[in-house]
Amino acid sequence: MGKEEKYDFVIIGGGPATRNLNRYLRTLNPDASVAVIRKEERIANHCSIPYIIDGSVPLEGGGLVSDARITNYGSRLIKERVVSGDPESKYVVTDAGNRFNYDKLIFAVGSQEVVPPVSGIDLPGVLKMRFIDDLRASLRVIDEKRSFVVLGAGYVGLEIGAALRRIGRDVTIVEMLPHVMGDRYDPEFTSRIEEVVEREGVRLELGKKAVRIGGRDWVEFVELENGDKVETEAVLLAAGVAPRLDFARKFGLETARDGIIVDEFFHTNLPDVYAIGDCIQTRSYTTGKPFPGKLGSNAAKMARTLGMNFGGYEFAFEGVINPACTSVFGMQFCSAGLTEKDAVQEGIKVRTSKIENTDIYDNMPQRKTVWVKLIFRESDRQVIGGELLGPTNFAGVSDCLGQLIYRKATVEDIVRMDFSTHPELTPNPAHAHLMFAAQKAFEEWQTGKHD
Amino acid sequence: MGKEEKYDFVIIGGGPATRNLNRYLRTLNPDASVAVIRKEERIANHCSIPYIIDGSVPLEGGGLVSDARITNYGSRLIKERVVSGDPESKYVVTDAGNRFNYDKLIFAVGSQEVVPPVSGIDLPGVLKMRFIDDLRASLRVIDEKRSFVVLGAGYVGLEIGAALRRIGRDVTIVEMLPHVMGDRYDPEFTSRIEEVVEREGVRLELGKKAVRIGGRDWVEFVELENGDKVETEAVLLAAGVAPRLDFARKFGLETARDGIIVDEFFHTNLPDVYAIGDCIQTRSYTTGKPFPGKLGSNAAKMARTLGMNFGGYEFAFEGVINPACTSVFGMQFCSAGLTEKDAVQEGIKVRTSKIENTDIYDNMPQRKTVWVKLIFRESDRQVIGGELLGPTNFAGVSDCLGQLIYRKATVEDIVRMDFSTHPELTPNPAHAHLMFAAQKAFEEWQTGKHD
Repeated sequence: MGKEEKYDFVIIGGGPATRNLNRYLRTLNPDASVAVIRKEERIANHCSIPYIIDGSVPLEGGGLVSDARITNYGSRLIKERVVSGDPESKYVVTDAGNRFNYDKLIFAVGSQEVVPPVSGIDLPGVLKMRFIDDLRASLRVIDEKRSFVVLGAGYVGLEIGAALRRIGRDVTIVEMLPHVMGDRYDPEFTSRIEEVVEREGVRLELGKKAVRIGGRDWVEFVELENGDKVETEAVLLAAGVAPRLDFARKFGLETARDGIIVDEFFHTNLPDVYAIGDCIQTRSYTTGKPFPGKLGSNAAKMARTLGMNFGGYEFAFEGVINPACTSVFGMQFCSAGLTEKDAVQEGIKVRTSKIENTDIYDNMPQRKTVWVKLIFRESDRQVIGGELLGPTNFAGVSDCLGQLIYRKATVEDIVRMDFSTHPELTPNPAHAHLMFAAQKAFEEWQTGKHD
Repeated sequence: MGKEEKYDFVIIGGGPATRNLNRYLRTLNPDASVAVIRKEERIANHCSIPYIIDGSVPLEGGGLVSDARITNYGSRLIKERVVSGDPESKYVVTDAGNRFNYDKLIFAVGSQEVVPPVSGIDLPGVLKMRFIDDLRASLRVIDEKRSFVVLGAGYVGLEIGAALRRIGRDVTIVEMLPHVMGDRYDPEFTSRIEEVVEREGVRLELGKKAVRIGGRDWVEFVELENGDKVETEAVLLAAGVAPRLDFARKFGLETARDGIIVDEFFHTNLPDVYAIGDCIQTRSYTTGKPFPGKLGSNAAKMARTLGMNFGGYEFAFEGVINPACTSVFGMQFCSAGLTEKDAVQEGIKVRTSKIENTDIYDNMPQRKTVWVKLIFRESDRQVIGGELLGPTNFAGVSDCLGQLIYRKATVEDIVRMDFSTHPELTPNPAHAHLMFAAQKAFEEWQTGKHD
C-alpha cells in the first residue's frame, strides 16, 4: 500500500503542454499545490531529435528537457505511471501504488509514434525515437549502421532523413501518400521540396506502401506494395503520431480516434478533468472541425490559455491556426491555416493566389527564388491559409500570416497592411510576400482574369 | 507655347508612391488616362544606395528603377518639372511650357535630403546621394577618396557608413543626438548597435553637432562643437529627409513643416488634389498624431489605399505602424509602432518588457543572443510598439508585431497567440520572441513584481 497525497492540480504527462501550464499555474495561483506525474525518467526535446541524430545537440546535454522547469516553480514531479483512478472520488493511482487526490486533473499525456500495420514491424532494427529509452537505443544503431529506410515523409521523416544524410548515411524515405509533407502542403510546393531532397541524395519512394519488413533476426529489407525491395540495415518510424489514450479511456474520458474530446475551455466529459496538447482532438480555428495539429507549439498555446483560465480568466480556446516552419537541406518552408486540399475537403470554395517572388530585393545579386501561395475563401475573401517555400527563414512570416488568419483579414486588408522592407532582408516594398500574393488575388477578383 | 493635354489622373513625382498608385489606378480604372510627371530623367532605388556604394548593385543596372513600371501599364511618363498651375482651373504647367489639365491631381513628390545649417556645407566634397546626378557624382568621389565623414546616424547614415567600411574606407559618423538610430530605438538597443559598429572600425562621434566644414577648395575637415576637428576627404549627408514642398506651397496646398496636410482619404485642402508618400504629414496609427515615417514602405501602403479608393472603395487611411528592419555588420534590428520615448513624449503611461532571448532553440550550438522589447499601454494593456535586435532576420517578426499593434492586441492576446517553432529557425516554443516578452509583462502585471 503506497502513500496518499492531495493536490489542487494534478497534471499527467511531461511534455510542452505540462511545462507551460505549470508555469502559468505557479504564476497565477502561487498558493496552489501542483503535482506533475509522468512515467518517463527523462524526456527528450522532440523537435531536436534530428539535431541529436546529426550530433549537433548532445542527447545527454541539450537534448534532454530539464526537470527544473517543473521543480523550480515549486511543483512536485513524480516519475511514476498512472494506471488507475476514480473520477467520482477524484484520484489517480500510479504503478508504485501511490494515490493522488486532485481538485483538478489535467491530461497532458501527449502522443506516441504510429506503428504502421506492416508485417515485420517488430523485427530488431525497426527504430523508434520518441521516448528516451527508444531514442538512446536508436542512436546506438544509427552510430553503427550505414543504410536506413525512414517510414513516413512528414516533417519528422524529412528532418530525420536530412539529418542522416548530413552524417553520410544512405537514406530512403518511403511514403504512402503521393507527396512529401502530404497533408500540410499542396502539391506545387511538395514537388519542389522533393526535388531538393533527391538532389541531396535521399531516395524517395512516394505513393508506395511498405507491406513487409524482412530479415533473419535483424532488418534486411523493406518490401513495397509494388514488389520492390529496399535493402537496408535499419528502419526508422516517422509515420506520424497518435494520441496516448489507454489510460484516458480506462478513466472514462470520451475520445475520438484523434484524441480526447474537449470543449473550448478544455473540459472533458468528466467534472474537473481537463485535457490539453497532443492527446486531445484539436480543432481548426477556421472550420471549428477536427484538424491535424499535434505540434509542441499548439500544445504550449493550449497550456497558456488553460493556465490563464485557472488564474481567473475565461478565454475560450478558438482552435489552432497551426503556423509551422521547417528547414530541410537549406530549403525552408512554412504554412499556416488550411491547405487548398483541406479547404476542398471541407467544401469551402476558395481562390488561391500563387506567386514566384525573390527572397530579398530583386536587384541584390544573392537573391533567391521563393514561392508563396495564399488561400482565400471565395464567399468573404478572407485568408484561411498559406504556404511559403524558399531558402529563407519564414518563421516570422508564418506567424504574421497566422495573425492575419486570426483577425479574419480579407484580401483587401492584406493589400493595405504595413510591411517592413530592406534590400538584404525582404522583397521590394511592392513585392512583400503576403501583400504581393494578396494583390494578385485582388486583381484577379477585380478583373475576372485568372492564370 | 507648349502643348496642352488632359488626363483623368495626373501624378507628380516618380517614387514608390507613384509606382504603386499607378498600378492600382490601371488595374481598377483601366479606361482612365494617367500621366506621371517627374523632373528626374532616371530614378535610383533609394534603399539600394548602400549596395550601390559597395558595388554589389551596379547603379546603371539594378540600381535604377525601370520606367516600364509606369509605361508598361499604359500611363504617360513625362520627364518635366512642374513649375506652376491653377487649382481652380485644374491644370499644372511644366518647365517645358506644357500644360496638363487634370480631373484629379496627386502630389507624390517625395522628400529630399536635409541640408544641415553648417558653415561650409556647400564646399566641394560634401556629397548628396538621393537624386541621380548627385548620386553619380558622389560615386565617383567615393571611388577616389579614402576617408569619409557621414553626417547623421539614422538608418541611412549607418547603412552608408557600413557600406563604406565594406569597401575599406575610413569612416566617421557624426550625430547630434546622443545615440545612433536616436528616434526609432530606445537607448538599451542603440548602445548595442553602437558597440558592433565601432568594433567594425567605424568611428562614432555621438551627441556632437558639426559646426563647420572646412577646406581650401575641397573638404578637408569637419569641426565639431567641442572644437574637435575630424580630418576627411569627403562628407556624406545623411541627416534625414524633408518633404519637397516648394511647388506644393506655391500651388496653394496647406502644409506643415513635415509635409502636406491631408485627411484620412489623402484629400488636401484643394478640391480633387490628393497627396501621398514622403511629402505628406504622416500620422501614427496609435496616436493619430504626426509621426516620422518617411519610408518607401509607408508610401507604398498609402498608394495602395488611395488607389483602391479611386477604384470605388472607401478605406480611411488609419496611419502608419511603421514596421522597419535593417542590417548593419550582421547585426539586424527591427521596430514597429512607438518607442518608449515616443510614448513618454505623448504622455502615454507605458509598461515595457525587455528580454534577452536566443535567436533559435537554446540547445542549438550556433544560437546567438537577441534582445526584445515590447511597449504596452498601461491603461488597456495594448501593445503599441516594440524593438528587436540580434543576428537574425526579424522582418517577418516586425510585420507580425505590426499586425498585433494593428489589431490592438493586449498582453493577454499575445500570450495566447499561435507561433511557429523550429530548432534552426525560432526560439523554443516557450520562448517565441513576442510571446516571451509579453509573458514577462503579463506576469509582472499579475504579481506586481518588476525588474
